Amino acid sequence: MDAKALWQRYQNWLYFHEGLGLYLDVSRMRFDDAFVESLQPKFDKAFADMAQLEKGAIANPDENRMVGHYWLRNPDLAPTPELTQEIVQTLEQIEAFAEKVQTGAIHPPRANRFTDVISIGIGGSALGPEFVAEALAPDFPPLKIHFIDNSDPAGIDRTLNHLRNNLASTLVLVISKSGGTPEPRNGMIEVKKAYAGHNLDFAQYAVAITSPDSNLDKVAKSESWLARFPMYDWVGGRTSEMSAVGLVPAALQGIDIRAMLDGAKEMDDATRVPDVKNNPAALLALSWYFSGNGRGEKDMVVLPYKDSLLLFSRYLQQLVMESLGKEKDLDGNIVHQGIAVYGNKGSTDQHAYVQQLREGVPNFFATLIEVLEDRKGPSPEIDPGVTAGDYLSGFLQGTRQALYENQRDSITVTIPQVNARTVGALIALYERAVGLYGILVNINAYHQPGVEAGKKAAAAILDLQSRVLAVLQKETTALSVEQIAEKAGAADQVEAIYKILRHLHTNQRGIVLQGNLGQPSSLKVSAS
Amino acid sequence: MDAKALWQRYQNWLYFHEGLGLYLDVSRMRFDDAFVESLQPKFDKAFADMAQLEKGAIANPDENRMVGHYWLRNPDLAPTPELTQEIVQTLEQIEAFAEKVQTGAIHPPRANRFTDVISIGIGGSALGPEFVAEALAPDFPPLKIHFIDNSDPAGIDRTLNHLRNNLASTLVLVISKSGGTPEPRNGMIEVKKAYAGHNLDFAQYAVAITSPDSNLDKVAKSESWLARFPMYDWVGGRTSEMSAVGLVPAALQGIDIRAMLDGAKEMDDATRVPDVKNNPAALLALSWYFSGNGRGEKDMVVLPYKDSLLLFSRYLQQLVMESLGKEKDLDGNIVHQGIAVYGNKGSTDQHAYVQQLREGVPNFFATLIEVLEDRKGPSPEIDPGVTAGDYLSGFLQGTRQALYENQRDSITVTIPQVNARTVGALIALYERAVGLYGILVNINAYHQPGVEAGKKAAAAILDLQSRVLAVLQKETTALSVEQIAEKAGAADQVEAIYKILRHLHTNQRGIVLQGNLGQPSSLKVSAS
Repeated sequence: MDAKALWQRYQNWLYFHEGLGLYLDVSRMRFDDAFVESLQPKFDKAFADMAQLEKGAIANPDENRMVGHYWLRNPDLAPTPELTQEIVQTLEQIEAFAEKVQTGAIHPPRANRFTDVISIGIGGSALGPEFVAEALAPDFPPLKIHFIDNSDPAGIDRTLNHLRNNLASTLVLVISKSGGTPEPRNGMIEVKKAYAGHNLDFAQYAVAITSPDSNLDKVAKSESWLARFPMYDWVGGRTSEMSAVGLVPAALQGIDIRAMLDGAKEMDDATRVPDVKNNPAALLALSWYFSGNGRGEKDMVVLPYKDSLLLFSRYLQQLVMESLGKEKDLDGNIVHQGIAVYGNKGSTDQHAYVQQLREGVPNFFATLIEVLEDRKGPSPEIDPGVTAGDYLSGFLQGTRQALYENQRDSITVTIPQVNARTVGALIALYERAVGLYGILVNINAYHQPGVEAGKKAAAAILDLQSRVLAVLQKETTALSVEQIAEKAGAADQVEAIYKILRHLHTNQRGIVLQGNLGQPSSLKVSAS
Repeated sequence: MDAKALWQRYQNWLYFHEGLGLYLDVSRMRFDDAFVESLQPKFDKAFADMAQLEKGAIANPDENRMVGHYWLRNPDLAPTPELTQEIVQTLEQIEAFAEKVQTGAIHPPRANRFTDVISIGIGGSALGPEFVAEALAPDFPPLKIHFIDNSDPAGIDRTLNHLRNNLASTLVLVISKSGGTPEPRNGMIEVKKAYAGHNLDFAQYAVAITSPDSNLDKVAKSESWLARFPMYDWVGGRTSEMSAVGLVPAALQGIDIRAMLDGAKEMDDATRVPDVKNNPAALLALSWYFSGNGRGEKDMVVLPYKDSLLLFSRYLQQLVMESLGKEKDLDGNIVHQGIAVYGNKGSTDQHAYVQQLREGVPNFFATLIEVLEDRKGPSPEIDPGVTAGDYLSGFLQGTRQALYENQRDSITVTIPQVNARTVGALIALYERAVGLYGILVNINAYHQPGVEAGKKAAAAILDLQSRVLAVLQKETTALSVEQIAEKAGAADQVEAIYKILRHLHTNQRGIVLQGNLGQPSSLKVSAS
């Protein structure tokens, strides 16, 4: 395509949202009009299904649930007045709570103010809050946030060690829908012990964000925790950033949560338009479908040219891959759907893997995110008439152009600045794009059966561990790994048992291994 | 394969390095003996070429350079006594410098000690130091490190703002081979201005890590900076962690750099063995080749089950993708090689994209990294007989097993703990695996032509910007974007010019845009 035709294509496809100052450019996805036309019937269905979803249809059939994250930013859309009221009230409670914490009206027993907050959660209860904290928290927030988002003992120790002098002024958020997910439960138990170790009454520092009447909610209620906020069964973890899950940590850090909700609402309005060319989420879904033939054949590489958006790709990994990465379609056919997502930030990544993007395996399309505002205030000149921000802008343009010249497709999203409104809008844009794409490829974008399966597989390993320990505690002589497996009634799990033993041995948990560690069958195992 | 056969396969292929306590398990890569045999001739060549490389052959023909990162951990291997001596002396100088900084023998003009360090660098001058800091820095390091690894003005402001009360006790490392790479140069210029703004003499806080006689080196020398350390032309950026680039920041943070070098040396010895089955790097290269048919058809997903290894995948993105992502092979054929790499950490990612890994597009193989030691000291029980670390271990085993059952291949690397020795060993393991794989697929793994091209593309945009500004400064009436392009002699770059103008306009750089921002051809542009 010559320069003139390309400039025409750019203008033809340029989407601009005046209220948000947001641009979406899909001109470098090399689809043609016939392709767009061919998808029209699918899009007609997608727009219709999405309208039903917003009205409260059971859009997550496997779990028999409504999908209502759009109601969070426009409570009037909720299917019942009770739901509307609950959303509005929760938001007010969050704001009131955050204000009281920040002013010191709510304060810890031994200090005038809370200075820090530990947020304990995983998956949807971590990635959104982490992304938003990195993108939007002020340099000196009223409360400084720390995350425990794993079941890693050393990681928990590091966080607690950093806070050891501030624990008496540190609020703890425990975020878990059921309260039973192991990682947040483990984190909570360990943190609780740390508070006890400092003679601090955990309940006076703790806030629960959980389903009403979950086990966690009951504990928080009976122990009189500082506060409890609800998680709804009609909001999935990966779309929960605008629920209490995301809003409580954001508000505590002094982030303008109303602006975030407003930005999302404006984007929701824009992505409700049943016209592909004038709907930015539909343009994204169209582009993804085109690039990967509706089968995820290309990876989505996400490159925000702005440090504060570093975690956006990690946030999108969950939103996109957990939503779209499905074995079966809605008719039960095996489809192995999904789109792989990765990326960090530009121009940093131009000095890392962009070499491969430009020249190597053409197994991806890129999404460049441009932020027009370089910084607050004027910039010094690096060279005459040139600032560091001009360089950054030049890197983005140069990379986009070079990818195109090498037949690598790209999308460019442009926002005027990184603020609560544009971040809310970005989240809403991708939520809707994922929802629409899910309908285009006929999958349930709102469940996660593989995650449940993973929890079960881990539980089976822990069960095996206890059987192995029971065997060893009865034995007086050392056994081989095979013998232990036999006695534990798990002759087909010798390898898993070997690994359990190796782990227990390293952590001095009363297991002695003798022999050559590199030759598992040579080992003799006993309880110490 | 039944459980017994699988257990046998596991033991057959299990690699164990006794000195390092490191295991490598490739039993879940479903290659057979015939495949291994078929690659033997390629491996024979790879081992021979690698031996030549280590002896100082010009292994990077395009840039006519030796590839000598292996000499850094075993200076006796360097091809000349002068090089050996230079490596040894530099290491001693780094240790002496770090000690003096830590004891206060070298201190800033207005404080007894340096408390913080800003490390300015990008690509290989950032990813290694960042990974190592996250993995190994003590919770309360003698100097706390901060990174400027981009040309983002807002990002630079954030770092400097966090340090505003400590700038007078903050050391600055400027890491740039040539000194001319824009991102570190821009970072340095902005940081220098910040020091001047606080009436601090930058030279008394600054350290250069650069090629001897580069422009940066000359500046540092003439301004009498605190110290200068060399970057060698025979060490590529992505393999420079064991050079001054990685060792200076590590040593300042109190990380045991000798142990890191020792771990790498032990691994180098192990990966020099010309026997695939007894060489862990060869086992990795074999597995990668098998999985992607030697053409990078599958992505490498890296999942360390340990918070402190979070940045390992980002480090590997550069090491693997920049090394292997090449358009041409060594014979000049167009091959579009590479392997895409992504990942964060387990079990966190099990609540994000592992849903797709288990069920969705089978376009990847996984690398699970297991750390046997849960934490320093004993763990509390979460349930009777079960710790948080047992859960983490169970998650890893469960995920590996589920992937296998769903025909998704995986590699497992096991280390006893995260320490300087094992991190050095991991880096060396992957450096060698990438080197061997590069030979298997016949590409130059040591240059990065696409990165150079990216720099040129950005420079062209900046040049266009200055031409556009020159045009506007002469005009008295507003012009359309097309007219400006015409007058700037760049009629085929209207779109690039529109974007330049939009960026300048947003940042109040003397450009006025009138009209509909969403319709570029409607705009009238003038200088204010």
